[in-house]
Parts: sequence; C-alpha cells; structure tokens
Amino acid sequence: MGVSGCGKSTIGKLLARELDIPFFDGDDFHPESNIKKMSNGQALNDEDRQGWLQTLNNLAIKQLTKNSCVIVCSALKQKYRETLSHTIKEKTKWVHLSGSFEQVLKRLNNREGHFMPAELLKSQFETLETPDEAMKIDIKITPENIIKKIKQELMKTSEFGLFGLGVMGKSLCRNLANNGFKISMFNRHVNDVEVDVAKNFKAEYPELAQAEAYDDIAAFVNSLQQPRRIMLMVNAGKTIDYVIEDLLPHLSKNDIIIDGGNSNYKKTKQRNEYLKTKGIHFIGTGVSGGEEGALKGPSIMPSGDKEAYKKIAPFLETISAKDKNGLPCCTYVGPEGSGQFIKMVHNGVEYVEMQLLAEVATILESLGQNPDAIANTLNNWKATADSYLLEITTAIFQKKEGDDWLVNKILDKAGNKGTGNWTTIASAELGVPSTLIASALFSRYISFYKEERLQLNKLFEKGNTSQLNLTTNEILEAYQFARIINHYQGFKLIAEASNKMDWDLNLSEIARIWTNGCIIRSTLMEELVVVFKQTSNILTNTELINTVIKYKPAAKKVVSQCILNDVATPALAEAIQFLNGITTAYTSANIIQAQRDYFGAHTYQRLDDASGKSHHTNWN
Amino acid sequence: MGVSGCGKSTIGKLLARELDIPFFDGDDFHPESNIKKMSNGQALNDEDRQGWLQTLNNLAIKQLTKNSCVIVCSALKQKYRETLSHTIKEKTKWVHLSGSFEQVLKRLNNREGHFMPAELLKSQFETLETPDEAMKIDIKITPENIIKKIKQELMKTSEFGLFGLGVMGKSLCRNLANNGFKISMFNRHVNDVEVDVAKNFKAEYPELAQAEAYDDIAAFVNSLQQPRRIMLMVNAGKTIDYVIEDLLPHLSKNDIIIDGGNSNYKKTKQRNEYLKTKGIHFIGTGVSGGEEGALKGPSIMPSGDKEAYKKIAPFLETISAKDKNGLPCCTYVGPEGSGQFIKMVHNGVEYVEMQLLAEVATILESLGQNPDAIANTLNNWKATADSYLLEITTAIFQKKEGDDWLVNKILDKAGNKGTGNWTTIASAELGVPSTLIASALFSRYISFYKEERLQLNKLFEKGNTSQLNLTTNEILEAYQFARIINHYQGFKLIAEASNKMDWDLNLSEIARIWTNGCIIRSTLMEELVVVFKQTSNILTNTELINTVIKYKPAAKKVVSQCILNDVATPALAEAIQFLNGITTAYTSANIIQAQRDYFGAHTYQRLDDASGKSHHTNWN
Repeated sequence: MGVSGCGKSTIGKLLARELDIPFFDGDDFHPESNIKKMSNGQALNDEDRQGWLQTLNNLAIKQLTKNSCVIVCSALKQKYRETLSHTIKEKTKWVHLSGSFEQVLKRLNNREGHFMPAELLKSQFETLETPDEAMKIDIKITPENIIKKIKQELMKTSEFGLFGLGVMGKSLCRNLANNGFKISMFNRHVNDVEVDVAKNFKAEYPELAQAEAYDDIAAFVNSLQQPRRIMLMVNAGKTIDYVIEDLLPHLSKNDIIIDGGNSNYKKTKQRNEYLKTKGIHFIGTGVSGGEEGALKGPSIMPSGDKEAYKKIAPFLETISAKDKNGLPCCTYVGPEGSGQFIKMVHNGVEYVEMQLLAEVATILESLGQNPDAIANTLNNWKATADSYLLEITTAIFQKKEGDDWLVNKILDKAGNKGTGNWTTIASAELGVPSTLIASALFSRYISFYKEERLQLNKLFEKGNTSQLNLTTNEILEAYQFARIINHYQGFKLIAEASNKMDWDLNLSEIARIWTNGCIIRSTLMEELVVVFKQTSNILTNTELINTVIKYKPAAKKVVSQCILNDVATPALAEAIQFLNGITTAYTSANIIQAQRDYFGAHTYQRLDDASGKSHHTNWN
Repeated sequence: MGVSGCGKSTIGKLLARELDIPFFDGDDFHPESNIKKMSNGQALNDEDRQGWLQTLNNLAIKQLTKNSCVIVCSALKQKYRETLSHTIKEKTKWVHLSGSFEQVLKRLNNREGHFMPAELLKSQFETLETPDEAMKIDIKITPENIIKKIKQELMKTSEFGLFGLGVMGKSLCRNLANNGFKISMFNRHVNDVEVDVAKNFKAEYPELAQAEAYDDIAAFVNSLQQPRRIMLMVNAGKTIDYVIEDLLPHLSKNDIIIDGGNSNYKKTKQRNEYLKTKGIHFIGTGVSGGEEGALKGPSIMPSGDKEAYKKIAPFLETISAKDKNGLPCCTYVGPEGSGQFIKMVHNGVEYVEMQLLAEVATILESLGQNPDAIANTLNNWKATADSYLLEITTAIFQKKEGDDWLVNKILDKAGNKGTGNWTTIASAELGVPSTLIASALFSRYISFYKEERLQLNKLFEKGNTSQLNLTTNEILEAYQFARIINHYQGFKLIAEASNKMDWDLNLSEIARIWTNGCIIRSTLMEELVVVFKQTSNILTNTELINTVIKYKPAAKKVVSQCILNDVATPALAEAIQFLNGITTAYTSANIIQAQRDYFGAHTYQRLDDASGKSHHTNWN
C-alpha cells in the first residue's frame, strides 16, 4: 500500500518474484468507469472504490486457498483496508511504502504513460490514514534493500509451529530453535493455572530469542508459513480431537498437523481419515527420548501420508538423534497409525526393560548389596549389556540425599500412562503372546495396591531370603536372557501387526531408529539392526540362539532360587516360561482342546488329519 | 367375530376378564348414521361400514402399543377383516363364534333392547364368508367351556421364544420344553446351509412336540405371548445388533430381549440404552454350562432392568441348575452389562483352571505317567480338589480310540472365543493385575504358533526332563495353591469392576450361582460362598491363608524343578510370582518411579511425605 508513485508496482513485482508467489496490481482491477474518472483528473469517491476493493478482497481470498500472493493497492483509508482484508484479516500482511509529498511528487513527474495525474497526489496525502498494523518501509532506500527489509520482516513468520508446552513440547522447541528453525510456540491460557506459558518459556532460554510465543490460536496459526506445519504435543486422548477442532477454522488446505503424543494407533487412523476430508494432512508420530532426548535429539517415528511427511522431514530429521553412521533416528515408518503403533510397542518393551532392571536390583539387594554396590554391579555390566536404561538406573542407585540413598525414599507405586496398557490390549486383540509386557504392566498394577500389600504382608509370613546363592554374573546372564526374549516379543508384535494391517514395516529400519535418542537404545538394539536384515524372527538367528542357549542355565538358576526364596521376579520367570513354550513342539493345548470339545462341543483338529477338519467326540 | 346374536359380546367380555386385557364392543363405535339405518331395519352397505372398520382398526393398533385387547365385531367378509387387521395382521387372532341360522335366530328372538332386527339375520348369513385363519367355536357349548377352549387355543402362543439354534440354543430349548414351558424356536434360513433347522430339531426330540418351529421372524414373534420374551443365542458381536434390528419392527412395547451369548459387557450397556429408547427391555445374561449344562441346568447370570428380570425369572430360574440347598443357580446380578461381565470373568477363571490342569498333566507326563495313570492320579484328587473340570479331564485321559488314547491325537492349537481375551483387556483397562488369566490366554496364543514352535524346537536344544523329583501330592498342592490365587484374581476383578461402575455386586451370591451348572463349579467355589459373606478379599480369610501357606512350599518345589528341567508351567509359576508380589510390603516399583522421573520427569511420591505431593529430581 501507499500513495500513487510510492513504487508499489515495482516493489510488489520484485517481492513476488523473490517469494515465488503471484503478483497482482490492484489498479488492473479497476472498473472502466473508475479508470475514466481518474483519466479525467477526477478523484474517486468511496462509492467508486467499494466494488473495486471487494474485487481485490475476493482475489486475495481465492489466492489464499492455494498459497499466497502479493497485491498492490493504495489502500489509503483504514476502512479500505478493512474491506480488502475482510474475513482474512489475520492472514493479511500490510507493507506500507512511505515517503514525503515532495519525494513522491518528484517520482510521479518522472513517470510516463500513467493515468494518474500528479495533481491528485495532494488529495491522496490528505486521505492517507497511516496504518499501525503495517510494516512501514521508507522509499528512500534502494529497491533491493526494500525487498531485503520486507523479507526480513516477513520471515518473522515461522517455519514450524509447536502446540503445547509440556515437558516434551518445551524440549522439542529448544531443539528446533537450536537447529536454526524459526518456530512459533503455543500454549493455551488458563486463568491462574497456565498464564503466559509460551512467553515465559521464550524469556527463559536465549535460543528462543527468534521464536514467537502465543496463547491465541488464531495468531499462532497466522504466524506460520504455508503449508503450515503444526506439531501437537498435548495429552493423548480426547484433547487431541478438541485441539484439532480448535485449529481447523484457521487452517488452509494442505496444512500439516503432526501428533507427537502417545496417541492410540487406531485413533490416529481415524483422525487421518477425518482430516483428509478437510484437506488437511495428518502425521501421527511416536517421539521417544524423554525430556532430555527431546532436547538433544529424540527417536522419531512418523507415519501417515508419505507425501506430507516429505514436507516435514527436514525438520524432524534434523532435530532427531543420529545413529552411529550419522543417519537420523527418524524414518517414515508406514501408513495409518503405524508410527504410533511402534511407539506403543517401544514403550511396552521399555516397561519390560525397566521391570527387569527393578527385578535384578531386588535380587542384588537380597544378596546384601546396598545401592552403591548395586550401582557398581550395574556399572560393570555396561561392557556387555550397555543400554540407556542401564546407565540411568546406575545413576539412580548412586544418587544420595544427605547420607541416604534417594531411591529408598521413593514410594513404591509405579505410574503408567497408557502405552503399556495399550500394548497388552493390542497383543490380546492381535493374538500375539506378549507375555513380558503384560507381566511388567501387571507388576505396576500390583505396586498400586500398596495398602492391600501391607495388609497381606502381615497376614502371610515371608520366607528368609538369605539362602540365595548366586553370582552377579549369573544374574547378568539371566537379565540378558530375558532382554532377548523381550525384544523377540516386541518385534513379533510389530511384525504381526504389520502383516495383519498391511503396513509393510521394515523391522531393521525400526531397530535402527531405536539405536539412539530413544529410551530403549542399547547395544542389543544395534545388533538387531543387522539381524533383522536377514530374518523377522530373532530366535532364528544363529548368534542369538547361541547366546540364549548360553545364558539359559543362569536364568533357570536365578529364577528357581528366587522362587525358593520368595523373591518376586515375574518378568525374569516369564522369559523362561515363554522360551519353553515357544520351543515346545507339542504343547499341552491338546488337553485344552479336548476340554473345550467336552463341555462346549467346540470340536478339535487331529494330528493325523492334515485336512484341518473339525472333529467332535462324545467323551462321556 | 360372527353374525349378530352369536354371543360375541358375552364371550368377549368373559374372555377379556380372563386374560386381564381391555374389552371393546365394535357396535359401540358405529357412527350415528349407521345406528339409525339399522334401527330403521336397513342393512348397512360396505360404504357404511368402511369408516367404522377403520375406527376399529385404529383402536386395535393403539391397544397393541400398550398390551392387547378383545374387540368384538361381526366382521363377516374377508375384506372387512382385512381392514380390521390392516398393518397388524400377524398380531391379530380371530375367534369365530359359529352356529346355525336357527340357533342364532332363536337367541335373537330372546333378546331385548338390541337395535338389530331379526329380519336382517338372513342377509348376515348370506354375507358371511367363513374365515380360514380364525379359530372356529361352536356356540352350542356353554360360555365357560367356550372361554376354556379359546384360551386353550390362544395358549398355542408360546410363553418364551428362543432365537438361534446352535449348540447352546438347542440345549436351552430342550431344557425349557422339559420343564413344561411352551416355547417358540427360531433359526434363520440360509440356502443350502441352514434349511429347516428349527423344524428338523423339533422333529428330532419328543420333548419338543409342543414347541413351535420357525424360520420366519414375523411368524416367530407373532407366536409369542405379550410381553414377549425372546432369548437370543446367536454369535456375540455385530450379529446381535443385526438380529435386534430384524426383530424391532415386529415387537411391541415392553417386550423383553434376552441376550444369552458371550457379549461384551460394554456393548450390553449400549444395547440396553438403545432399546430403552424403543420401549423394549434388554437383559444381558451370562449362561455357563456348555452343551450339557444348558440342557440339564446351566448357571445363569442375568443383568439389566430389574423389573424386566422379574418377568423372565420364572423361566430362567426353573431351567437353571440348583445349588446344594435347592436354590436356583440364577440370580439377578446387577445393572447394565454386569451379568455379562461376570460371565466374562467366569470364562477367564475357566481358562486358568483348564491351563492349570494342562500344566499338571504335563508334569505328570514328564514323571512318566501315561494317560491312564494321569487319569488315575486326577481321580484320586477328587477327594480334596473336586471340580467339574477335574472330572472331565479325568474322563478325557481315560478315553481311548482303539488301543490309543484319544487325547494324544489332538492337534495342540487351542481355540479361544473372545472371553479370555476380553478378560485380559478388561484387567488392563481397569488396572487390575489378572496375571493368571493373561498367562492362560497367552499360552493358547503360543499354542497357535505351531509352525514356529516346530521350527524353534529344532533350533533350540531342550534339556532332559527325567530329573524331576516330585510326588503327585506335591503336584496336587501346587495345583490347589494356584487355584486359590486364580479365584482370588477373578473375584478381585469383579470387585474392582463393581466399585468402579457402581454395580454393587454380591460376591457370595455370584460364587453361589457358580456352585452348580457352570464350568468352574467346584468344592472350592462352595467354600467361597461362605468366605465372601465375611470378606471381599479371600486372601484375608484365615483358613485360606493357612491353606496357601501350607501349599506354597510344594508349589515352589514343583515350579522351580520344572524350570530347571525345561518344563513349561507358566500359570503355576505366575501364581507364585503373584503371591510374592501382592504380599510384598515394599516392591521394586520405587526403582520404576525413579527411572520414569529420570527420563520423563514423571515425578514420584515419597515415603516420608504423606501429603502425596509430586517430587522431581534432577538425577544427573
């Protein structure tokens, strides 16, 4: 905008070329009557302008449904600008090319073939209502510098939006900012509870100096370049749907919403389909790494529309952790909610890894080791069984509070946020025996019955645990044994889901993005990247078979001794039970089938009838 | 219906009183013009009658929305009757009071104050089109006998309808018929696959001589007394909803649908609410006992609208099994889908009881016992551990096919029809550690991976199992130990569900209806009826505590030896793990909480802070 002769057309064209968007000269849209009037030296009145301004407004609205555009127009009065930006106020950026009357007059007198007589200029200056909301650019500077300046100002729009500043959201913001991305951050305003969260967060960290902070959704969305990339880091569940509905009115076609929470994979599929009907892309992505991983580089597991993924890949792959070859621990996982499915299984495996460490620590404690000694033992295991969880558990046992160990002061009621629960449910639904995940989940549930445990502890006498006769190496081997079974089961669940839902998942690639950034990163996971290049079943890999066979005697000894000494080791025990089950050629399921046929006429198949026919016996 | 003077009003009033439904005399609904015409000795023409017949038809339709009624009307022509029964043809029962011209004339001449001149009678007899569909009653017999006869004929309508003649449906039909109930039986017609199922079934069993057999839904529904009682014995899942939609157009207000399948309890609640909007009652009921139980007396677990239950109680309580005091193993369980919830848990407990027997048999086999010896061992256990499942398992091991034992010829892939699966899911959802049910479910899942088991069996060397050193009594004690834990877990799940969903379930009463008829009936269940009168937690009962403590050493010995000898006993092992967990005053969940706080800032509570405040530590 600006008075005639300020250079709108020249600058507008240059700017449009620079931004690679269409250019429109408002004057080209005047009706014949207006042009005639101006050619006759008459000033247009507001009535003359109204239809023309509406035409330009329609043009802008239409262009916004595609991408964006540059429109030049004098737009001298506030009410003209209101007509021009009608319904798209938040998406309109005003650039005011401003100069003195003398400057502009001089320019106009130098112009040829223009239909605007210079004598009208005075009336223009009189009419001009200088806008507050516009970026004001002095026309004295060179066109190149003007463009540079406008671009600088426009680039205040962000490349990536992050919605929801909880622990993970905040860490991802800092990660994005540290990687040089221009981001917008949003956190809702809740009176007295969540006030200026984004603003205060921005103020807290220097790397967020260029980031925009919002608690208004419209302004947040409007601050983003199109197609917009908005990553939700809010509580999984209904909240996601509410947030989507809040965002929708402000979004444009082809914008991309990324759900980085632990959403249920079935819901992700539904949301994907729903948003497709609105022209919006939806990417469900697992993000693992906790607070620190999110900050320094998490493992990221995006799924959904592959084309949409390409538009967010540069961001996610840049901020993700890197594997030992420097490749991002972020890969397009597959369609639908497959990314959130594998994140769910990741967390299931994590539940078990945590439970195994808890059981191992309990055994070490039963052997008389204090937390420092336990930490020392675990530290020694790094050589052969290194993992992130082993490392942090070592640190946990070292942590002191005064003269005491902090770990011993923590209430023994373990929380769970749904993913272990969901993995167990998914296993039950898909017919996959994820026994260790269920065991780890139920151990947390048992921990929750604290009052009942205290009551029953008094009612039942516990045996003396001093009879344990185990070496730390045997415990290490039992632990390693159970970890292999755990990883077998986790990837089995993924493989079966992939088959049943036609996801065509790449197990090796999944193992690879879990070698860094995520909670279950470990040297074992590094091995599995290679193993999965040959087989989808790790228990058919010769080296792992040998390892399992080698460690099994120790596992048997550890578990049987714990049973005899009343030390609870449900996950370690179940690992043995499972291996025995899955390697049994002829299980006792024949008895179950006979029972079912006996009481319910459910029929059975016979070993000597390969046709698979159903047989029924009158057993009485 | 019948000509004037046949006695319609007298008989109609008596019948209505007998059936306790309203009575309407068609003549009371004539318009003034018709009455005048008849008083003047003119015969009504069809045009005169049309509006009047429609009035009566509307009356009948309106009455049917409430209950039923008796309407008397000459209804001489077929087309009159068609108008009268328009849209309610299947719900209309015609009774034709029939006599000779002379008989009726004599009666009419004896009548006073009637507006129908006798001379019109002749035209009535000429007009009368004797109906095929009506019950024809000779007016010679006394009114008392006429009523008796009509009632007898009407009673050809059935008291109870059974929809779906699978294994369980058929057994329930025979059970109802054996108990003297007049039933209608329906099975769909599917070309070439299900043809005349109901008819053939009726022909097969003499006790079904009085039963009605249908493959047409309208005719089936129409054959039932109102309020109708229709029990669905069809496959749980979507089928139930389809069947409900098929039935709805034929039903009347206050009819009762009973779902006797293993439906998901959440679905039962939804269906209950949906059918309430249609004025139909819905009772979800568990039925256990298998084919034989359903025939001789199952355990029945109805839930939903208590008032509606009262209308079906005489049927269900009569056909159910009886407990040792002669009381029916059928009781109103509670609101919503609580009946199907406890049936689901019943099946979960059943899964475990079956799995424990399969494990026990495996151990006995490892000790060198052949099926006869195993049967003998199990038979000896009846003295202390009697149960229906123990008995049938004994019979299973005895069953021979030629010189071989049949059980050894059965394919070891165990089926599951959803309830074990659902119990595991419900446990996960409700936060209850039903570890044994999950273990039994997953054992069935493992059995399904037959090909992989054969492959891995070759890849992994199995140990020599000849080192087992166990007495059968130790195995019995281990078995009994695990069964107590199993029953603890099952009832715990019910108790928690009852709390969370405000069902107010009576655990003792639930145990009581499970003492006979159902698959998990046992002497232990008899004991629990008494135990649950004092406590909702069986592990706080002194006798059971002593039993558990007494049996635990054997359980430990059996499981640890099996582990050392590579014999899979997942459920037996888990029973020990669980007891150790739930009797541990301070579990290792503190370590889990520390880990969660370390990587996810999930916070933790402290033992020394009773406020329950969340604490967070920077562990690094």
